[in-house]
Amino acid sequence: MIERVHTNQRMSKIVKHGGVVYLCGQVGSGDTVAEQTKDCLGRVDKLLREAGSSRAHMLQVVIWLADMADFDEMNEVWDAWVPEGAAPARACGEAKLADADLRVEIIVTAALAE
Amino acid sequence: MIERVHTNQRMSKIVKHGGVVYLCGQVGSGDTVAEQTKDCLGRVDKLLREAGSSRAHMLQVVIWLADMADFDEMNEVWDAWVPEGAAPARACGEAKLADADLRVEIIVTAALAE
Amino acid sequence: MIERVHTNQRMSKIVKHGGVVYLCGQVGSGDTVAEQTKDCLGRVDKLLREAGSSRAHMLQVVIWLADMADFDEMNEVWDAWVPEGAAPARACGEAKLADADLRVEIIVTAALAE
Repeated sequence: MIERVHTNQRMSKIVKHGGVVYLCGQVGSGDTVAEQTKDCLGRVDKLLREAGSSRAHMLQVVIWLADMADFDEMNEVWDAWVPEGAAPARACGEAKLADADLRVEIIVTAALAE
Repeated sequence: MIERVHTNQRMSKIVKHGGVVYLCGQVGSGDTVAEQTKDCLGRVDKLLREAGSSRAHMLQVVIWLADMADFDEMNEVWDAWVPEGAAPARACGEAKLADADLRVEIIVTAALAE
Repeated sequence: MIERVHTNQRMSKIVKHGGVVYLCGQVGSGDTVAEQTKDCLGRVDKLLREAGSSRAHMLQVVIWLADMADFDEMNEVWDAWVPEGAAPARACGEAKLADADLRVEIIVTAALAE
C-alpha cells in the first residue's frame, strides 16, 4: 500500500500512498537563488513524472529560503514554472538549510494522475 | 479530481483532493501577534467554510512565529479559537516570514466535512 | 471520520483520517541532540503504535533543528532507527523551537497499517 522510490537508509525521494505522492525536500545547484530554484524545480518535475504525477497535480508546497531577501528572485522562477490555473497551496518561510551554500529547499505534496 | 479556489499564478488559497483541503499559509493584519493571530484565524475560518470544511475538521497545523517570544500570546488566541475536543496535530517553530511586519503564519490541512 | 487521541485545548497528539495519521511535533529529553533525538523517536514509536501505524509506515517527515550544526549527530540516530527499505520522504531545516533547551523537533505523517 506504500510505494517508495529511490530509497536509502535516511529517506525516500518518492513515497506514494492513497493517491498522494510525497517528495523529499528538493534543493538545486547554482550560485544564485534563481539558478538553484530552476535546478530544484527541474528535479521536482523529474520526480513527479517518475511518480506518475506532474507539476499540474501539486497540492501543497512549502518553500524554505535561507534568506528571505531572495523571495522575489525565487518567485520569478516559481511563477514562470507553475502551470496556469494549477497552482498549489503554498507557504514560504526562512530557514537555514543543511548546507551553507543552499539558498532554497522545496517540499512538494502532489496528487497522482489518474 | 483536484479542485482549486482563489488561484493565481503563484498559489491557490484552497486546494481540495481526496477528502482533504490544503490552505495556503495564512497571515493576518495587526500590530501585535495577538491581533495578527485573530485576523489570521478569521481568514482560516472563512477559507475552511468556503472549502466545505471548518475549524472542527483540522488535521494538521504548522505555525511559524517570526519570534518565539510571541509563543504564549499566540497560544492564548489559538486556544480560545480551537473547538473543544477538536484540536489538530500541531507544530510550532520560529521562521522569519515574507514581510518583516508579519509575526505569525499558519498552515492548515483539514478534512472536508461529509 | 476524524479520530483524535490525547486531545487537549491546544492540540491532539494523534489525528487519524482517510488512512493517514498526523502526529503533533515531537521533541525529546536530554542534553545532547543525540539524546533528544533518541527520546523523541521513542515517543514517535509509541504514538504510531497507539495509532495503528509504525515507523515502517511513515510517509513524510519534517525535522527542525535549532542548530544545523547538529545535522550529522541527529542523522546518526535517525539512520539507525529507520527500518531498512522503509524510509519516508524527509526534509530538514533550521528553526528555533518553543523552548531554548530543545534542539530537535520531528513532525511525522504516516499511513495506518491495514
